[in-house]
Amino acid sequence: MTQGSIIDTLVFRADEIILYPGKPGPRDRIYRVESGLVRIQSVDDDGNALTLRFVRPGEYFGEEALSGGDRPYHAEAAVDTRIAQIHPNLLEPQEALDLAVQLALALNRTYTSIQRLVSQRLKNRVAAALLEFAETPLAVRDAKGRVMIHVTHDEIASAVGSVRETVTKVVGELARDGLIKSGYGRVMLLDAPTLAELAQQSS
Amino acid sequence: MTQGSIIDTLVFRADEIILYPGKPGPRDRIYRVESGLVRIQSVDDDGNALTLRFVRPGEYFGEEALSGGDRPYHAEAAVDTRIAQIHPNLLEPQEALDLAVQLALALNRTYTSIQRLVSQRLKNRVAAALLEFAETPLAVRDAKGRVMIHVTHDEIASAVGSVRETVTKVVGELARDGLIKSGYGRVMLLDAPTLAELAQQSS
Repeated sequence: MTQGSIIDTLVFRADEIILYPGKPGPRDRIYRVESGLVRIQSVDDDGNALTLRFVRPGEYFGEEALSGGDRPYHAEAAVDTRIAQIHPNLLEPQEALDLAVQLALALNRTYTSIQRLVSQRLKNRVAAALLEFAETPLAVRDAKGRVMIHVTHDEIASAVGSVRETVTKVVGELARDGLIKSGYGRVMLLDAPTLAELAQQSS
Repeated sequence: MTQGSIIDTLVFRADEIILYPGKPGPRDRIYRVESGLVRIQSVDDDGNALTLRFVRPGEYFGEEALSGGDRPYHAEAAVDTRIAQIHPNLLEPQEALDLAVQLALALNRTYTSIQRLVSQRLKNRVAAALLEFAETPLAVRDAKGRVMIHVTHDEIASAVGSVRETVTKVVGELARDGLIKSGYGRVMLLDAPTLAELAQQSS
């Protein structure tokens, strides 16, 4: 990885907004997550949030500074996060290629989101979202090796394109099925293999 | 635009499959549409097709040859199409940057798809899809300047994440409202401004 175009490293605390929707300005940069996790999400007129994707270490966001399209999302730090600010006009060849690879992967993941929205019931989408959360810094392992995810029902709803009230019912169902244990602002995975089966099923 | 990595130019007739789902092989390339239109679509176990995006001239597909992820889609020529086959390891710096820009735009458009799926009713999504079709080679203008789109109800269903039977009802509704005229395998736009209003509305 070349470093020629990094102009700064920035630190954001959990829940801080990094980018707002709108037209990229002349000072806008591309960002690469160095550590932590960034949530890319849009909010409709009624205040319902929709997570478009998560950006993990090594991945980029703010790519509209390069392409010129309007930014349709907020970017916010999901946990304490460090990001490199990259000048789009100073991208070195290896960085441009790395950016293309990462955007290709991001595109592939949004395909999965679209497929899930069209073909899966909410319960299956919630199972898939919990397993995705488990692979991010939102999750920690306790002394017994169980995965505990720090996430609210609102955040799960945003990830699956639903609303909190409905997600709360589905979370209760998964808990009654013995697949998870749900507490305030946290979900513990009890049966990851069955959740993975659910995440694969279409309706 | 540099040409150093183009290894071939290929021609496909309308409805020909260009790429199948699966793991990219060592001989797989990245493709840039030179003329025509490519439909990127997945098909579920029940045979329901879902259009993930359209690739227009100057845009790329087959990007998983670069990123290494599984290809979750078929790529098919929507009309007669000419594509440049690009060797991912021979990408010149300017091409890598161009690819990154185009993938950034593609990502942005899939964000719009996700937002529409979550927040819009089918009628609004169909209006948006018809206006998107109108900007592709699927559309022609007749002598009176009206836009005629060559598209089946199945193809509209695939674009909006629904099934033909339901789309046929919505198309009938739009026709009764005087916004379109629908024939076998074709739709004529009669009132683009009202369709554009519908395409903007959330439910």
